[in-house]
Amino acid sequence: MSEQDRYGIRPGEVAVKGPVVSDASLQFIGRIRTPFQTRADCPRQGDMEAGPVCTLEIAEKWRLALVGLEKFGFGDVLYWLDQSRRDLVHQRPGHSNAPVGTFAIRSPVRPNPIGLSRVAIVELREDAVLVRGLDCLDKTPLLDIKPNRCVHAPS
Amino acid sequence: MSEQDRYGIRPGEVAVKGPVVSDASLQFIGRIRTPFQTRADCPRQGDMEAGPVCTLEIAEKWRLALVGLEKFGFGDVLYWLDQSRRDLVHQRPGHSNAPVGTFAIRSPVRPNPIGLSRVAIVELREDAVLVRGLDCLDKTPLLDIKPNRCVHAPS
Repeated sequence: MSEQDRYGIRPGEVAVKGPVVSDASLQFIGRIRTPFQTRADCPRQGDMEAGPVCTLEIAEKWRLALVGLEKFGFGDVLYWLDQSRRDLVHQRPGHSNAPVGTFAIRSPVRPNPIGLSRVAIVELREDAVLVRGLDCLDKTPLLDIKPNRCVHAPS
Repeated sequence: MSEQDRYGIRPGEVAVKGPVVSDASLQFIGRIRTPFQTRADCPRQGDMEAGPVCTLEIAEKWRLALVGLEKFGFGDVLYWLDQSRRDLVHQRPGHSNAPVGTFAIRSPVRPNPIGLSRVAIVELREDAVLVRGLDCLDKTPLLDIKPNRCVHAPS
């Protein structure tokens, strides 16, 4: 069964042809634990104030890299949306009738399905970071954590 | 010549052992043109107001995916820092004496060297997006563009 058969395509959506070219490789540095077990459970957007506390579990190899993160109240979390198809250039979001370009929406369906969420850091542990603001599925692979001194200012 | 020999390591820095595991693959969707030809040219941080206008060149295959981006004034740009080593867990930034964890700084040296910049969208063309706010080298591979309605609000 092809990826297209599994995930389907809505009228008005447009896919590019051909396999994914591998220009670079990612290594997972841990995984994200959230209360969201199915896509229907996931909120449309994370909430840094009222959202549930989620856990960034860090693989043993990378735990020393957390040192110093305690100085920051916010972070940018990057993760790999491993359930997403990667070939759509035009998409019809569920809440909309009109197809729109992939780079004009924040859908998980993208040529490189990297999720990005700004989060509030709730607690730093030796092997994990507890955060608020995520909207992804439980067990999503983790790619990166970047500190963010202030999410409200543009620089 | 190993990557370590090429890029060196400062006293107090700590690297993990072993090759990069390939858990997932990236495809480049274009490349970024900036005025910064060497690392010394790159500013420490992009400036969405006073920084130079840079060009996100979009590969032909993905150009249709720009439709609709004209409605947004800001975006999040993801790119691949292909010159970066990937094994440091503790680093000593050039401006600091103390080693710090990789996830506590925004250095390009990371297990997955994905750069993230918030940008102001200056002009949308059929094959490119002109933006302000980047700090990366000229010809950096482009991974993703996500729209951002408002960079000042947390949600």
